[in-house]
Amino acid sequence: MKLKVFADRMSQPSRAVIIFCKVNGIDFEEVKVDLSKRQHLSSEFKEINPMGKVPAIVDGRFKLFESHAILIYLSCAFPGVPDHWYPADLFRRAKIQSVLDWHHSNLRQGAVGYVLNSTLAPALGRPLNPEAAAEAEKLLFSSLTKIESVWLKGKGRFLLGGFQPSVGDLSLVCEIMQLEVLDEEDRDRILGPHKKVQQWIESTRNATQPHFDEVHKVLIKVRTLLQAQRSASGKTPLASKM
Amino acid sequence: MKLKVFADRMSQPSRAVIIFCKVNGIDFEEVKVDLSKRQHLSSEFKEINPMGKVPAIVDGRFKLFESHAILIYLSCAFPGVPDHWYPADLFRRAKIQSVLDWHHSNLRQGAVGYVLNSTLAPALGRPLNPEAAAEAEKLLFSSLTKIESVWLKGKGRFLLGGFQPSVGDLSLVCEIMQLEVLDEEDRDRILGPHKKVQQWIESTRNATQPHFDEVHKVLIKVRTLLQAQRSASGKTPLASKM
Repeated sequence: MKLKVFADRMSQPSRAVIIFCKVNGIDFEEVKVDLSKRQHLSSEFKEINPMGKVPAIVDGRFKLFESHAILIYLSCAFPGVPDHWYPADLFRRAKIQSVLDWHHSNLRQGAVGYVLNSTLAPALGRPLNPEAAAEAEKLLFSSLTKIESVWLKGKGRFLLGGFQPSVGDLSLVCEIMQLEVLDEEDRDRILGPHKKVQQWIESTRNATQPHFDEVHKVLIKVRTLLQAQRSASGKTPLASKM
Repeated sequence: MKLKVFADRMSQPSRAVIIFCKVNGIDFEEVKVDLSKRQHLSSEFKEINPMGKVPAIVDGRFKLFESHAILIYLSCAFPGVPDHWYPADLFRRAKIQSVLDWHHSNLRQGAVGYVLNSTLAPALGRPLNPEAAAEAEKLLFSSLTKIESVWLKGKGRFLLGGFQPSVGDLSLVCEIMQLEVLDEEDRDRILGPHKKVQQWIESTRNATQPHFDEVHKVLIKVRTLLQAQRSASGKTPLASKM
C-alpha cells in the first residue's frame, strides 16, 4: 500500500515532507487537508492525527505525525534515501537532532508567530495582533542571526558545515520560505541583513529542484491574493480563494 | 575522559539529562551553570553551547546541546542503556520522536510560560505577566488533556502504552514537575483534573528512584523560599538564595 501524506502546502512542515518524498523518489499519495476549511479538525482526520495538525502520514498500518519525526522515519524506512539526509553516523545524527530540536522554540515560533499575527490571521478568521507580531519578529530575527553565527559556521553550504542538505536544512528553509507571503518591503527588512541565510536558502532550493519551486508555488499565489486584497481594502476574504 | 553535563537543576531539561545518566549508571561529571547568576550567558559557557542554554554535554571532543538530542545521543552512545529508553525498533522509535517533537510547542511552552510569568519571573529579574500566564495556562491545560487522551491511551503505565519509560516519559514528566514551585492551590487547580497524568508522574518517579527525588529536591527548596517570600511581602529576592 502506497505511503499517504496528509498535508496542506500552506503549512511549512507539510511542504518539507512533500519535497522530501519527491526529491527522494518515494512513491506517495498526497492527501490535501485544507486548513482554511478547517478539515484538520474533522473527526475523519483526527483518526489519522488526534492532535489535528498537518502533516501526518499513514504507511501501511503505521500512522505518524510531527514533521521531524516523519522526516526521520522516512529517511530510515526507505532504503533509497541518501545518507546525507539523516546520517547513520552517531555524531552527525546527534548534531542534526540538535538543529531540529532548537528549531521548535526559536525559528518556528518566531516565523509562524510573525507571519500569522502580521499578515495571515484574517484569512484564518482571527484578528491581526501587532503586539504579538512585534514580539515574534524579535525571536525570528534573533533566530536568523543564530543560524548564521552558529549553524552555518562550517565549511559547506549547508547547516553544520554540510556539503549536502540534511532534513534539518529542509525543515528550517521551508519555515523561512513562509516569509514569501509578506509584502516585499517587510520581507526585505527581515531577510535583507541575513546574507548567509539567503545563500543557504538558495543552496537548499537548488539541491531540491524542481520540487522546491513547485511545492512553494502556493505561497506566491497567496502573496498575490493578499496584495490584491490590500489594494481592494480587504473586501475579498483570502480563505475563500485558497 | 568522563562525560561532562553542564546543567542547572532548576532547568527541567537539565534534570531529565541528569536523572537519565544516574539511572543508567553513566559515569559523568555534573558542572553547574548557575542560571540565577547568568552563567549560561558567560563567554566560557558559550564555548560549550553558543546558544547559551542548559543542558549541554561534552563527551571527549564531542559537544552537544538540546536535551532531546542529548538523551537520544546518550541512549545510542552508551551500550549499557536498556533499549526501552530509545528503542532500536523503527516504529517505536518514530513514535517516541513524535512525542519529543510535540512536546516543544505544547507542554513545554505552556508549562514554562505559566511558571515563569505567574511565579518565577521576579527571581530572574523580570516582572510577573498575568496576561502571558493566563495564555500559557490554557496551553498547559490543553497539553495535559492531550497527554491523557492521546499519549497515555495504551495499555502500559507509560506514554504510547509502554510498560517501561522512554526518554519521552522522562522529558515530559520533568517538565511537569516544575509545577512544584507553585503554591499548592494553584498546582492542584492545574494538575487535579488530570488523574492519569498524576499516576504517570508517579510511575516515572518510581522507575527512576532514588535519583528522581534527589534531583528534584531543588524545587521543594525553591517552593519553600517562595512561600517565605510571599509571607514576608517579597523582601528577600529569591535569586540571592538559590
